Amino acid sequence: MRLAELSERSGVSTATIKYYLRQGMLAPGRKIGATTADYDESHVRRLRLVRALIEVGRLPVATAKEVIGYIDDDSLDQTMRLGAALWALPHGPEPDETDPSVVAAAQEVDSLLETLGWSTAREVGALSPDYRALVVAVTTLSRLGYPWGGEMAVPYAELMHQAAIRDLDYMDTHSTETEKVETAVAATVLIEPVLRSLRRLAQAEEAARRYGL
Amino acid sequence: MRLAELSERSGVSTATIKYYLRQGMLAPGRKIGATTADYDESHVRRLRLVRALIEVGRLPVATAKEVIGYIDDDSLDQTMRLGAALWALPHGPEPDETDPSVVAAAQEVDSLLETLGWSTAREVGALSPDYRALVVAVTTLSRLGYPWGGEMAVPYAELMHQAAIRDLDYMDTHSTETEKVETAVAATVLIEPVLRSLRRLAQAEEAARRYGL
Repeated sequence: MRLAELSERSGVSTATIKYYLRQGMLAPGRKIGATTADYDESHVRRLRLVRALIEVGRLPVATAKEVIGYIDDDSLDQTMRLGAALWALPHGPEPDETDPSVVAAAQEVDSLLETLGWSTAREVGALSPDYRALVVAVTTLSRLGYPWGGEMAVPYAELMHQAAIRDLDYMDTHSTETEKVETAVAATVLIEPVLRSLRRLAQAEEAARRYGL
Repeated sequence: MRLAELSERSGVSTATIKYYLRQGMLAPGRKIGATTADYDESHVRRLRLVRALIEVGRLPVATAKEVIGYIDDDSLDQTMRLGAALWALPHGPEPDETDPSVVAAAQEVDSLLETLGWSTAREVGALSPDYRALVVAVTTLSRLGYPWGGEMAVPYAELMHQAAIRDLDYMDTHSTETEKVETAVAATVLIEPVLRSLRRLAQAEEAARRYGL
């Protein structure tokens, strides 16, 4: 397809598509003339991912470019490409490791990972921005007088493991490695607001069942 | 306890506590002199909730005041106080109901709620800001080429129902109605970042198990 059709299919203006091409976030089309190129489904898919990152994930373009860079990095295998791309997503404030309440929260998280048997997460530990974000969230809970850990944390973690299994099952319905990694990154960003709304709807549903309306 | 101790216990400055008192977000202490008052655990708890809403939920003070207003509304029963407070939380952009892709997403959501048997959510429908936020999220997924619904949606919804059951179990460990509602609202806001981090950690864990490291 030509640039105009790619623009229509992806919902991205031709000027913005040209910008993404210059930034290396989109592979060049197949040259079919001095000023025209041919694009295919892989370009549509890539533009949709970029929109998901920027419009829903609210990533700055430079961060989206970094995420895309990992997805396209041929020197990495699939797990590493996915891992690096997910780590490049924004993760909020960093934990202050000199703060005793942060140290206590990190111990709580370590003990949770051990109970769960999440051995990769334990090995990687604080290198993972998701681990660090979890430590920040647990620190905040405990600082605000809502201690969270031990018996209470395990079932929530197991539910999110079930969600992750669904996420990767969906990723595995795609055929190429790049397509899989692109889908997984988009799904991570796009499904977060879905899960938030579902949890709140379910709270209202469950409250009505328990206490009446 | 006196104002200084309340400030230390809650992590909120005395000037800010006085501001919340003037705003009616915190009940006055028991007068024990012309210029001094006595505060108790209910004041500590309330200030922690206000911090959760403002610091973690990033609510403007006016919105936090509205949420608190519903929690304190004696004319409502417990389910209504909780529901009104949760509905007053920020919910992001509103769906444009004249857009055919929004109408299609709303049908997808209705059919999901029917499959799940969430009868209260179905009855309340678009009156609920959580329903409307879910429609927006599903519209975005479909517009970006990641159709989400039917068979794929049900297991995610059931996982979030399990999470909601845990949320309400935790709420029910508290004794008074106000304490229950306060805890539920704080948990909704504070546990969201925990679930997001847990899902991402679980994705990495599951990817390592499936594809090796």
